[in-house]
Amino acid sequence: MWRNPIRFCRACAAAVEYRVPDDGDSRARAVCSSCGTIHYENPLNVVGTVPVWGDRVLLCRRAIEPRRGKWTLPAGFMELGETTAEGALRETREEAGADVALEGLFTLLNVARVGQVHIYYRARLLSDRFDPGHETLEARLFAEHEVPWDELAFRTVHETLRCYFDDRRRGHFGVHTGDIV
Amino acid sequence: MWRNPIRFCRACAAAVEYRVPDDGDSRARAVCSSCGTIHYENPLNVVGTVPVWGDRVLLCRRAIEPRRGKWTLPAGFMELGETTAEGALRETREEAGADVALEGLFTLLNVARVGQVHIYYRARLLSDRFDPGHETLEARLFAEHEVPWDELAFRTVHETLRCYFDDRRRGHFGVHTGDIV
Ligand SMILES: [Zn+2]
Ligand SMILES: [Zn+2]
Repeated sequence: MWRNPIRFCRACAAAVEYRVPDDGDSRARAVCSSCGTIHYENPLNVVGTVPVWGDRVLLCRRAIEPRRGKWTLPAGFMELGETTAEGALRETREEAGADVALEGLFTLLNVARVGQVHIYYRARLLSDRFDPGHETLEARLFAEHEVPWDELAFRTVHETLRCYFDDRRRGHFGVHTGDIV
Repeated sequence: MWRNPIRFCRACAAAVEYRVPDDGDSRARAVCSSCGTIHYENPLNVVGTVPVWGDRVLLCRRAIEPRRGKWTLPAGFMELGETTAEGALRETREEAGADVALEGLFTLLNVARVGQVHIYYRARLLSDRFDPGHETLEARLFAEHEVPWDELAFRTVHETLRCYFDDRRRGHFGVHTGDIV
């Protein structure tokens, strides 16, 4: 999304050029040739949950690109004005139509190649009735042996589910960090 | 930084208007009136370290606004193309001129009011010689009883240092999450 080069200034509509600003910065930025506005571009956070009901985990089958038809944990881009936890709750409600109680930070996974940080919380489902939104074809509970490992949408989802079942076997949930390269 | 409203399209320079796009979104975005480009605005990550040398912690006195003259842990905005850990290392090098070995994720603190997530790693200093960059007036090691608590630059720094000394007393370092409201 929106990672095409910036061509025009958001403040005055003049052309920008990519160059290192004169303020001590060491990176090229889109600098306005007219008003001098510097346009920073930074990584995005994707926030989501591992929603659990008994020994099963809730997955959503994606109704939208990318990875339409593949299974994912509920997650999406964090918005201004919310915390990581609030964003994770919102995405769980929007994508799965599920209400959960958060149970703590679980994974923080960097996907530097696409400028993203994926942050997942463990969550306890408050009911086993779901009402998925327009981004989801179907929401369903999976026991570990039922998880469609080869049909997961993203590697961050794969990694987060693997950590979840490993930790559960071990009887202790930690916080896991990692890089998807 | 750059949280003024967007006025013009980054792709075509036409005026934008804030409205809910027609793609199922539920938030107002800056949408181009001419080419339809949607300009998303999202939270920023600030990444840094708690650099430790023996029983002392490295703090930097800020040479720049905001909070010029106040003390901070080395931290700054995460950049595209790096991981949270790489960003934390880079900021420690740039602001304190210090080389460290990271020892794990330590705090994740939301500052939703300004659209930021602050992420700190514990870090072991590899030497007690520092060469601060232009953003820092002075870098110095502080034992717990020497920390200038009333002269810290940011509440995220205060909270992270408090967690650090509490955990050290307890003999166990966890991962801490919280909201600065
Ligand atoms: Zn301009
Ligand atoms: Zn346009």
